[in-house]
Amino acid sequence: MVTRTLARNLVASRYEDIPAAVRHEAARALLNWLGCAIGSARHETVERALAAVSRFSGPPQAAVLGRGERLDILHAALVNGISSHVLDFDDTHARAIHPSAPVLPALIALAEWRHVSGAQLAHAFVLGVEAEERIGLSVFPEHYEIGWHITGTAGVFGAAAAAGKVLGLNARQMAWALGIAATQSAGLQEMFGSMCKSLHPGRAAQNGLTAALLAARDFTSSEQAIEAPRGFAHVMSTRFDPGVITEGWGERYELMSNMYKPYACGLVVHAAIDGCIELKREHAIRPSDIERIDLKVSPLVPRLTGNKDPQSGLEGKFSVYHAAAAALVHGAAGESQFSDVCVRDPQIVALRGRISVEPDAAIRKTEAYVSIAFKNGRSYSKHVPHALGTLERPMSDADLEAKFRGLTAGILPSGQIEEVIASCWNLSALEDAGALARAAVPQG
Amino acid sequence: MVTRTLARNLVASRYEDIPAAVRHEAARALLNWLGCAIGSARHETVERALAAVSRFSGPPQAAVLGRGERLDILHAALVNGISSHVLDFDDTHARAIHPSAPVLPALIALAEWRHVSGAQLAHAFVLGVEAEERIGLSVFPEHYEIGWHITGTAGVFGAAAAAGKVLGLNARQMAWALGIAATQSAGLQEMFGSMCKSLHPGRAAQNGLTAALLAARDFTSSEQAIEAPRGFAHVMSTRFDPGVITEGWGERYELMSNMYKPYACGLVVHAAIDGCIELKREHAIRPSDIERIDLKVSPLVPRLTGNKDPQSGLEGKFSVYHAAAAALVHGAAGESQFSDVCVRDPQIVALRGRISVEPDAAIRKTEAYVSIAFKNGRSYSKHVPHALGTLERPMSDADLEAKFRGLTAGILPSGQIEEVIASCWNLSALEDAGALARAAVPQG
Repeated sequence: MVTRTLARNLVASRYEDIPAAVRHEAARALLNWLGCAIGSARHETVERALAAVSRFSGPPQAAVLGRGERLDILHAALVNGISSHVLDFDDTHARAIHPSAPVLPALIALAEWRHVSGAQLAHAFVLGVEAEERIGLSVFPEHYEIGWHITGTAGVFGAAAAAGKVLGLNARQMAWALGIAATQSAGLQEMFGSMCKSLHPGRAAQNGLTAALLAARDFTSSEQAIEAPRGFAHVMSTRFDPGVITEGWGERYELMSNMYKPYACGLVVHAAIDGCIELKREHAIRPSDIERIDLKVSPLVPRLTGNKDPQSGLEGKFSVYHAAAAALVHGAAGESQFSDVCVRDPQIVALRGRISVEPDAAIRKTEAYVSIAFKNGRSYSKHVPHALGTLERPMSDADLEAKFRGLTAGILPSGQIEEVIASCWNLSALEDAGALARAAVPQG
Repeated sequence: MVTRTLARNLVASRYEDIPAAVRHEAARALLNWLGCAIGSARHETVERALAAVSRFSGPPQAAVLGRGERLDILHAALVNGISSHVLDFDDTHARAIHPSAPVLPALIALAEWRHVSGAQLAHAFVLGVEAEERIGLSVFPEHYEIGWHITGTAGVFGAAAAAGKVLGLNARQMAWALGIAATQSAGLQEMFGSMCKSLHPGRAAQNGLTAALLAARDFTSSEQAIEAPRGFAHVMSTRFDPGVITEGWGERYELMSNMYKPYACGLVVHAAIDGCIELKREHAIRPSDIERIDLKVSPLVPRLTGNKDPQSGLEGKFSVYHAAAAALVHGAAGESQFSDVCVRDPQIVALRGRISVEPDAAIRKTEAYVSIAFKNGRSYSKHVPHALGTLERPMSDADLEAKFRGLTAGILPSGQIEEVIASCWNLSALEDAGALARAAVPQG
């Protein structure tokens, strides 16, 4: 029943029913996602994917964001899905999935191929997130603990639901689209650390879009693909709570549990970075004056990011020592703080050596205490109860704009950067959502 | 280790090492597969898939077999994979997978796109089958019993290995290709009875080919994707015997366990069909005289084909009741016995109602006992120890030619039909394997 009920709910939903706060969150997620995709346009992972598949692309229907190439919508969804996740800088639901990376690549490609208004895109996105999160959470955390990368395995449902909404599927076709998505659900955690991690949301976007396109042509599937004994939930998890998929439909929205990362590394390091940046802002600290730095953090922090002597930018993302030192020197922790150059900067290497990390089981993973002792005997301390970007202390709209500008500077001209930002905030009134994709490609 | 070992074995293999009997079996499999693909060229499933995706196809690199359209090689692999499995008339390994449908669509498309000799195609096909069967069998039967459609889930490895061999991948790239395949492995048994069942080998062919193309551009993956704790085997099965993947490499060939179907439905029904056809031949049975029919069969038969009241041709394939009734009325079980018309024929519907199925755990899945009791009190019985098409009672080369002619008549001119047959038997000496695809499309 639950597959059919979800399909009916998706088809029956009207944009007028979506609360203003949820609509605004859709705009925030879109801006954040666009920045990640544009900012990674020249990443090696994207270059290799494009080199492999562009010879097989169909008509130039949709843009590779941040670049000049135009591909058919299926390939565009694949490549934009890869680029938007490759830095691990995209959004994160408070409990499970990276929600935008599998869904928005399908929608932004559709919006260039046929007429889709901003309101339609926002509506389909909200519903796609609802579908993927509810389906994912119905088998969570067991499904994840088995080894599935839930952003891929559940994300494909989100792309199918969202694309199906834009394509105007009826309830039966929507159930088929969910079924075609279910039978393509894939992605192994073993891929973490390789280029395949970002392939997962790319394929989820492409496969979910394909599912909706097939269903629109009455390509049939099971209509109980989620709940049947040999369907998604029972085959791919040891736990299934179908109520999670339908309860409170239209009353609560999963998008309201969405979080955005201010820093280009794993969430557990964020509170320590916050403390360092705040102390630097408040006291105009000079790194050469520092005697020692003490971090009191969750035991997860040294376990996941305990590398004291990282050698590359990527290793730097897994070093709380590097992250804290770079934050104190630069007052930032963006992608350039996790470059090879920054990780090897002698000033930062020296400062890393003055940092001590004390794990404390009473401290949450988004909490930290930072203390800095100076050579002259003075000291400053800061308690960060909630890292910036958590639900308790979300990034503001201005924070998200700054992040977008940081990611896209040097890729888009400043006029286009401001155009994309303005279009996102104006999403509900945007007559043609394809304008977003056009503004996200360097012109001329 | 086993992913790397398999990759090295695939890369090191030379065609000269493949025994003549295995090469001949490759030709038999190719002929059988081409017949299935050509014969289903106008199937509704293929029409709907083409209607959905052809607008997104790239350059006309490869043919849709049995039709005029030309698509990019990835879409051609998808559509030919669907068509070759849609009748459930393609080949079956004695233990697990439909081996050709995920592998040959990738190879025949590559053969049109770049120069591939018949020997190269045969070699890559033998290796693809080796990879998919060995990986599949390493997690079999538990993997299947969980609910995975192994033709999709293991088939993607076969397509990746075969395409990787043609593309000349080195050992590291081949390990990546297997990893990219692993993280796309998908396909649920819940789809049996819908169009998605044949989508599985189509997607496996397309995704495996994509995996090889990505790996050729150094798109990285895990190199332990099969055996790692969060890799394919442990995530997707409760049992894993890595030795199955490497033991006896180059000594035994899985293709020698390949079987071809004389009847257009699942193998588990064949012995019962054989018994009905043989009894009808021997005794000139009139259906209206029949009081009841008793089938004693493997417990798999009612589990997989227990539909007592199918409503469509497709559902008829999953009904041992329909298959036996149609075989008794028509003395055949070809595609026309699994048409909507035949499934709704009142005479056959009436006869279905007189059939009882008794599962018996002592009976193998290719074995059956058929007993027919007549209204006049007489009765006939037949024990079928091995269905036609099994390894114990294989279809001959002439049987396969006849099956090919039956499937392709009315689609290809007779000259082309004989050209394809001759080219298959001459495969090892064929200078350009792309000629097979050209002969498989109606000319003029």
